[in-house]
Amino acid sequence: MSESRPITVGVDGMGGDDGPGVIVEGALLALRELSQETRVALIGDQRTLEAEVRRLDPSGSAGSRLLIEHAAESVGMGEDAATATRRKKDSSLAIGTRLIKEGRLDALFSAGNTGAMVAASLLNVGRIPGVLRPALATRIPAETPSGSCVILDVGATADCKPAYLAQFAVMGDIYARSALGVANPRIGLLNIGEEPSKGNELAREAHALLARAPIQFVGNVEGRDFFRGQADVVVTDGFTGNVVLKFLESVLGWTGRLLKDEVRTSLIARLGALMLLPSLSNLRRRLDYAEVGGAPLLGVAGACIVGHGRSSPRAVKNGLKAGASFVAQNINEQIQAALGKEMAEHVG
Amino acid sequence: MSESRPITVGVDGMGGDDGPGVIVEGALLALRELSQETRVALIGDQRTLEAEVRRLDPSGSAGSRLLIEHAAESVGMGEDAATATRRKKDSSLAIGTRLIKEGRLDALFSAGNTGAMVAASLLNVGRIPGVLRPALATRIPAETPSGSCVILDVGATADCKPAYLAQFAVMGDIYARSALGVANPRIGLLNIGEEPSKGNELAREAHALLARAPIQFVGNVEGRDFFRGQADVVVTDGFTGNVVLKFLESVLGWTGRLLKDEVRTSLIARLGALMLLPSLSNLRRRLDYAEVGGAPLLGVAGACIVGHGRSSPRAVKNGLKAGASFVAQNINEQIQAALGKEMAEHVG
Repeated sequence: MSESRPITVGVDGMGGDDGPGVIVEGALLALRELSQETRVALIGDQRTLEAEVRRLDPSGSAGSRLLIEHAAESVGMGEDAATATRRKKDSSLAIGTRLIKEGRLDALFSAGNTGAMVAASLLNVGRIPGVLRPALATRIPAETPSGSCVILDVGATADCKPAYLAQFAVMGDIYARSALGVANPRIGLLNIGEEPSKGNELAREAHALLARAPIQFVGNVEGRDFFRGQADVVVTDGFTGNVVLKFLESVLGWTGRLLKDEVRTSLIARLGALMLLPSLSNLRRRLDYAEVGGAPLLGVAGACIVGHGRSSPRAVKNGLKAGASFVAQNINEQIQAALGKEMAEHVG
Repeated sequence: MSESRPITVGVDGMGGDDGPGVIVEGALLALRELSQETRVALIGDQRTLEAEVRRLDPSGSAGSRLLIEHAAESVGMGEDAATATRRKKDSSLAIGTRLIKEGRLDALFSAGNTGAMVAASLLNVGRIPGVLRPALATRIPAETPSGSCVILDVGATADCKPAYLAQFAVMGDIYARSALGVANPRIGLLNIGEEPSKGNELAREAHALLARAPIQFVGNVEGRDFFRGQADVVVTDGFTGNVVLKFLESVLGWTGRLLKDEVRTSLIARLGALMLLPSLSNLRRRLDYAEVGGAPLLGVAGACIVGHGRSSPRAVKNGLKAGASFVAQNINEQIQAALGKEMAEHVG
């Protein structure tokens, strides 16, 4: 079984808003929870990473399960993805994705520059045969039976054609089966009305393709249906998906600030807010990126997982575990089988 | 001054989820707050509307300031907008928009089918010369100096070209000056990254046009910047804008339900929630559609205001007041001057 095959999960040691210490801490946490056969490779500046390992694991408990792959360069959070990918051939992202291609790494997690991770994955790992464009898939809390829904694409492919969305639906179906543990996911198309005739040209044409795809298509879902659990998977283009995801990220903070304004004027309300604090922080945790642990870049021929720039050590740990699980569940083999078959049908 | 000119504001008496009673109640509320020269015309089934007026204004206090224009048909909330507009020539929306065109009505508010209102306005009222496509503009709470930001388009034009967005920016600038009371609104482009090179093709090309437009362009704003007050006006296509608006509408209910889950497990938290209730309902009111009172359809040659299907009497009242204020502030004359001038420059 693939689950017991010894695998190596890599992590971009230089990516993320909070520096290599957070990444190394997350890697050490992951080693405690991953199977004994699984190794973690830190990719980045050797001396920096070695120093962090000595500081965070002074007893050397990680032993030979923690590797370091030196990378002379790194891509900053604000750098232009295309330029960085073209120029920095020795960045941690370039080296990590090349190690995937060479089969020396089984998965790669980065909390760094998302655009650069997507570009490096496409350049160095390449697409699964038959896949037109990749899609980033992430989970958001929703009132589905699993408590989550998968939304894709959230930012890999900003300009989409209907056929891309049809493939996103098939890839999202496969990913949701393992990520949400749902046997037959309900797939919805993000649109601005319920009827098939509604929406922009892209959505209308994608609707027709999704209706014929080998998935359980439940039709259009609107912005307000996200949380109502009408679909386990919501398909959209990378522009709309990214806007929605960032909107969602900011909404909790915003409602919190508005509520704080209201509360300020009343002593009773302030006391009430104090008594609610534990519930509020539970809620915050449920909505936290760290719980999810990263968005897989579906459609590339390797397990490439993107994390939030603000990833905590726990988020890094969960991202590494997501990578290991992505490999163990043979997601890419399933995608290749499904889209290869679809291609064969189109050709034949 | 235009403010003292006697005007007539019409309302679609048959539109909205809750029936004509709510509309008539809102119209009566509006008459109390509008100037004595302003009249309100109810458009819809005469007998139904007369019965509601008798029920809600038994003393006949509204007198000659409340008119009824009979419409033999009405457009249902779920009806296809194009079909309804083509077939129902005597719907309240068709008659209301024709009355605008004939100059017998100065403004029209409808809480009914948004798509049908847009279609009827385009067909019967037509666009302001020089305007390529109309845009629905609405206000959402944000941490700007005015406490709100205007977002457009939220659903009139699902498929946009860069030039449409450039015009939306100019129209949004004019509308925000009066709606937010901001002297020189900061205009942002909704996008998925800060740099001009980011986004889909539409956003990248629109960025270049906005940078040259006669507005205070502050560049790209991301989904998370909505609430941070980085822009007074956020420009986007009608597909993305509608998704975001519906998402926003559902978010409060969703966080409330999640919080209720959390609170259930603790007596202290439940007590705290009870003490917070007044603040929570204040907050709900601040986010309520009713406060805003309708979204003007910018770019059509009349004051056509769209309300939420769930409009309360107060929302209808505010929608009618928004229509009167739109006329009084000469928004359309300003749009025509700005876009006519722009056209002349392009031609000349």
